[in-house]
Amino acid sequence: MRDVVEIGLGKSAQRGYHLDDISIVPSRRTRDVDDVSTSWQLDAYPFKIPCVAHPSDATMSPQTAVALGRLGGLGVLNVEGLWCRYEDPVPILAELAGLGPAGTGRLQEVYAAPIKPELIVERVKEMRGGGITVAVRVSPQHTLAIAPVILDAGVDILVIQGTVVSAEHVSTVDEPLNLKEFIADLDLPVIVGGCTNYQTALHLMRTGAAGVVVGVGADRHSTTERVLGIRVPMATAIADAAAARRDYLDETGGRYVHLIADGDISTSADIAKALGCGADAVMLGEPLARCVGAPASGAWWHSAASHPKLPRGVYAPAAAASATLEELLFGPSHEATGMVNLFGGLRRAMAKCGYETLKEFQKVGLMLC
Amino acid sequence: MRDVVEIGLGKSAQRGYHLDDISIVPSRRTRDVDDVSTSWQLDAYPFKIPCVAHPSDATMSPQTAVALGRLGGLGVLNVEGLWCRYEDPVPILAELAGLGPAGTGRLQEVYAAPIKPELIVERVKEMRGGGITVAVRVSPQHTLAIAPVILDAGVDILVIQGTVVSAEHVSTVDEPLNLKEFIADLDLPVIVGGCTNYQTALHLMRTGAAGVVVGVGADRHSTTERVLGIRVPMATAIADAAAARRDYLDETGGRYVHLIADGDISTSADIAKALGCGADAVMLGEPLARCVGAPASGAWWHSAASHPKLPRGVYAPAAAASATLEELLFGPSHEATGMVNLFGGLRRAMAKCGYETLKEFQKVGLMLC
Amino acid sequence: MRDVVEIGLGKSAQRGYHLDDISIVPSRRTRDVDDVSTSWQLDAYPFKIPCVAHPSDATMSPQTAVALGRLGGLGVLNVEGLWCRYEDPVPILAELAGLGPAGTGRLQEVYAAPIKPELIVERVKEMRGGGITVAVRVSPQHTLAIAPVILDAGVDILVIQGTVVSAEHVSTVDEPLNLKEFIADLDLPVIVGGCTNYQTALHLMRTGAAGVVVGVGADRHSTTERVLGIRVPMATAIADAAAARRDYLDETGGRYVHLIADGDISTSADIAKALGCGADAVMLGEPLARCVGAPASGAWWHSAASHPKLPRGVYAPAAAASATLEELLFGPSHEATGMVNLFGGLRRAMAKCGYETLKEFQKVGLMLC
Amino acid sequence: MRDVVEIGLGKSAQRGYHLDDISIVPSRRTRDVDDVSTSWQLDAYPFKIPCVAHPSDATMSPQTAVALGRLGGLGVLNVEGLWCRYEDPVPILAELAGLGPAGTGRLQEVYAAPIKPELIVERVKEMRGGGITVAVRVSPQHTLAIAPVILDAGVDILVIQGTVVSAEHVSTVDEPLNLKEFIADLDLPVIVGGCTNYQTALHLMRTGAAGVVVGVGADRHSTTERVLGIRVPMATAIADAAAARRDYLDETGGRYVHLIADGDISTSADIAKALGCGADAVMLGEPLARCVGAPASGAWWHSAASHPKLPRGVYAPAAAASATLEELLFGPSHEATGMVNLFGGLRRAMAKCGYETLKEFQKVGLMLC
Repeated sequence: MRDVVEIGLGKSAQRGYHLDDISIVPSRRTRDVDDVSTSWQLDAYPFKIPCVAHPSDATMSPQTAVALGRLGGLGVLNVEGLWCRYEDPVPILAELAGLGPAGTGRLQEVYAAPIKPELIVERVKEMRGGGITVAVRVSPQHTLAIAPVILDAGVDILVIQGTVVSAEHVSTVDEPLNLKEFIADLDLPVIVGGCTNYQTALHLMRTGAAGVVVGVGADRHSTTERVLGIRVPMATAIADAAAARRDYLDETGGRYVHLIADGDISTSADIAKALGCGADAVMLGEPLARCVGAPASGAWWHSAASHPKLPRGVYAPAAAASATLEELLFGPSHEATGMVNLFGGLRRAMAKCGYETLKEFQKVGLMLC
Repeated sequence: MRDVVEIGLGKSAQRGYHLDDISIVPSRRTRDVDDVSTSWQLDAYPFKIPCVAHPSDATMSPQTAVALGRLGGLGVLNVEGLWCRYEDPVPILAELAGLGPAGTGRLQEVYAAPIKPELIVERVKEMRGGGITVAVRVSPQHTLAIAPVILDAGVDILVIQGTVVSAEHVSTVDEPLNLKEFIADLDLPVIVGGCTNYQTALHLMRTGAAGVVVGVGADRHSTTERVLGIRVPMATAIADAAAARRDYLDETGGRYVHLIADGDISTSADIAKALGCGADAVMLGEPLARCVGAPASGAWWHSAASHPKLPRGVYAPAAAASATLEELLFGPSHEATGMVNLFGGLRRAMAKCGYETLKEFQKVGLMLC
Repeated sequence: MRDVVEIGLGKSAQRGYHLDDISIVPSRRTRDVDDVSTSWQLDAYPFKIPCVAHPSDATMSPQTAVALGRLGGLGVLNVEGLWCRYEDPVPILAELAGLGPAGTGRLQEVYAAPIKPELIVERVKEMRGGGITVAVRVSPQHTLAIAPVILDAGVDILVIQGTVVSAEHVSTVDEPLNLKEFIADLDLPVIVGGCTNYQTALHLMRTGAAGVVVGVGADRHSTTERVLGIRVPMATAIADAAAARRDYLDETGGRYVHLIADGDISTSADIAKALGCGADAVMLGEPLARCVGAPASGAWWHSAASHPKLPRGVYAPAAAASATLEELLFGPSHEATGMVNLFGGLRRAMAKCGYETLKEFQKVGLMLC
Repeated sequence: MRDVVEIGLGKSAQRGYHLDDISIVPSRRTRDVDDVSTSWQLDAYPFKIPCVAHPSDATMSPQTAVALGRLGGLGVLNVEGLWCRYEDPVPILAELAGLGPAGTGRLQEVYAAPIKPELIVERVKEMRGGGITVAVRVSPQHTLAIAPVILDAGVDILVIQGTVVSAEHVSTVDEPLNLKEFIADLDLPVIVGGCTNYQTALHLMRTGAAGVVVGVGADRHSTTERVLGIRVPMATAIADAAAARRDYLDETGGRYVHLIADGDISTSADIAKALGCGADAVMLGEPLARCVGAPASGAWWHSAASHPKLPRGVYAPAAAASATLEELLFGPSHEATGMVNLFGGLRRAMAKCGYETLKEFQKVGLMLC
């Protein structure tokens, strides 16, 4: 039964569950790890692993997007980030890599520089040159202005992502983005989000998006919860969005929209649980920012951490990297934290629970404890 | 269903929920932040923000009451505090600002001085001179003795506040205050509380009060819970009082009594959640005590911390102020703690959840997690 | 509904609640603190406060038993403690007062000395000389052997207390104590326990006891839970025993057996909650051991901490005493911890919740949060 | 009622309970500790205590297996451990005893050496010479290859143990072990596991095993949960397996399969709770590794901690041993942690709850708190 509680007379709240609240349960069958596949496909684009980069300057430069793409994941460059505001962001990234824990003020300053359309073109070209599936992220607020530049530059996948995105944005001030019309006019697959519940997910699916981002990207450095009061229990959010996917599949007679979970994911266990709740892929932020060769040398900040008036994430200073990108994704690992060999861990979890493909693994049993 | 549990054979307890237990949930709609209003009105007095000062010497001097009033909130001076016990409390406040963590003993001493009626008149005059809506707080025990002085001095709003106030105080020792008769005889709006449940809230509404304080003002420095065993889960207390407001509205054919939440509120998220549970406004204690220019230079103590025999709050030494009063309320913020730009944060939370006014925002969805 | 959960197929567990899990709830009425009474009476013996000493050498010497009795509580000397093993235990207590945190080994040694009947007589005489109600504690194992000495010495109240005591002790090795026959033959009121549930409480009542100890005396220094797996959620244990008291009252047409809560009680809030769950009085251990003039100068150990083969409590080194016995019980307090002015705090809690006597206060509303 | 929760629309999770979540409850009867028996028998082999060694190099050498056997428990040597990879593992164990907290890398190296069949024969001989019941552990992956050597060497009990073992292992790569056929062909009793739920337990019973290991051996140093997402709430896992034992008993008209709980067990309380949930015996890992004379001088690592690509346990450096093996099992204890005198503690818990034999004790009441 849905877990709805009356917190006071006539006032109800639904109970939500975090990935940390749940675990996956072995079935009566086990499977050889070499028989397990972690492959994923979005529209025409196949991936070796269900891994999408969280589009942040600490995770993605054109170079790391290429590296991730070549290893089988999907890199996503933020066209509203430093690479499209500065001709040469490398010195700035080097400076940001060395900020102290109270680095918010400096983040606000460097992100105050304007976005330069010509740099967008340039960056897309760099990624295209790497031979990967090219994806960039734009915010809903800037989509109408920036999208033409992006499309002209020639990307494969467009990611329209904000903290909370709805299919129905009301404004008496600006002409708001009509996602449905906008996406209908495009030739390429669009990923849109974040969203946090069944209804918003369903409405975003109805815009024609190929993928929906579930969650607001919150991790232990995010303060969305303390600032806005919005806390997203990811297990519930993913399962609710999976119900929307099912209903939308029925309503359209077969359009399958992919769910990309963005939030609370830093270990192989988190990935396994997110997929077990119904996600098709996961977005990785901090893990990608921490590996050898990451753009900000191991420092990490969420995009919302640089908001000019209301920052919603804490700058996390660089930590010693324990793994290269390849080791991060595929091992071998020499520590037992679940933070290295992320997709090797996923593959082994699937084997021990008896599942062969990601789609089947969405049916894995869950336990609350 | 109401969450009632049998904790032992034949003994039940109702389950209550704290603001920390809940979060607010975006709806299927988002809204432009510039379309959102945080305005609030109590009786004839309009406010730009639903913000009432907790009447404590660490938050409110006549000067800071004026400052808060000018910025759009409601300042409340405690006429049983130092400003009405000492001709010049400034040196005492300076001393209290520098106490060590075990400052309780000294607090007990300085509050042993008698209240001087002529100072009440003087302080009200100072606030009146600032051009703001003038409000003062008196305890129920002292209301009969002090109220005439206050009324003669000419205030706009009277706040009768104790830890727990009921409409039915029984005493064989003193003639107790009959709130209903007392308020009926007054011309000005009265705010009364704190209360912690439906029935007490309803009875206080029936006294004719314009506003009811919900909660006992407990924050992390309060020890009401350890001393008295009374712990108020604010989400439940507010929702229950909101049910009383609804029933009283029906019973009177339209008298709307405002709920002012007092307890566990220190971030913009807390404010959003309190309003989402049904509050009309919030009381701020520690946050106001911590900003630049606060009366005790950043030190904070709850009124109950100075009780002569049974103190119920811990003296909190001054911390480095990170914001002016204006920044505290409206930003910009350069930290991601949710403790600066409180009402800018509220406004953005309302926008992301798709609500335009405070009254509508009381219907925001809640999640327990 | 009783909260019973199937933890696995066909295996159920009842959910129990700790005092920390609950709080007391103000009613729609408040009451003048001077109208509140905390008086308690057991059999023919009246007490100013519902306070029984936990019979441990760290809390009770003949002198402190007298001091507690004169202040209105019930002192209980452990006749199996150091005062009845050593002619002059003062030097030993002084040594124990200075043990390090790993003092268990030394405790085991000093308690290996034999109990001397002549010292029992001597100690009872000392207490009798203080003009108080005289009570001593004996374990069920030693009752048959020691009781004659105690009775000859002339005590007012006998406390038969072990960690877990049942009315039906089975042994093929020794002749076990038949509590029912034993108590029936006595002229004086007997307090017996601890017990942890409805059925054992009811059976102990049927032995003819005047009072039943509920709980195993566990506090934060106790390790009964880690050693035996027995954890007693006191709110549930007290409420269940109160149901047994009610049923026994009915079954006997009016015999009222007092419940003395022993465990998890160190603040005025804890006392208020224990009484609110249905207790008639509380046993205090560590609080009495910590005040100025306590037998072991502020050190504290539970009796079970000295078990020769399986100690079940941690020796707690002396801490700076913050209050005399009188201040501990009646204030004034100069700290806000709830650990000083214990019964002044209880009185104020009763007033704020609107209750006049302890018996009425057992009906106070409870909240789980 | 089974505790099943809808965590999102159409997605359910069963709630599971850890040993820490529960406690055991005294009944209305108590029993003399000298009347209590902790004896256990598996197939033809009687044991004084229901204690099986977790087959890890940090707990079991041939010598410590003999010592445990002589004290009344069941030692189990891991034939895939260092004793069967190195002629003389003593210097290696000495080195491993001194690793720092980040010892995983070195563990991976030493376990890369090949298993030598002739050493298996040698080690079995050493144990046989000690006059004990001889048991060894092999992984399911290596059973077909190694079992013939083991059987020729002449063991009494075979333990086939992996993290998660099912009766139905699917592989297109190797010919998988068919447990049912394999066990049917054997003359000696087999213990097999770990498993985590009713169905897997039942299927493992149907292979003809004499005992089933419940749990994955996780303790506070294990990271199975962080790496694989598999977290086993032991109270629920044991109770579910006990239901399988009951159903299998009925289905076979009387074949009783023993449950050996492996995970979260380090105190006498944990042992009592595991048996109270329905286990017949417990596996001890870290406790055995910590006592005087343990193979790695007090250091501890779980077998999974040395996995070459995906380690799932943290190396725990040696701590000062507080007890010999005999004291660990039978006391006396001079500390109150529940970690010494494990089976004396169990015996006392049984006495206080009123039970005489292990089988009866499986019916002890449980409380959730």
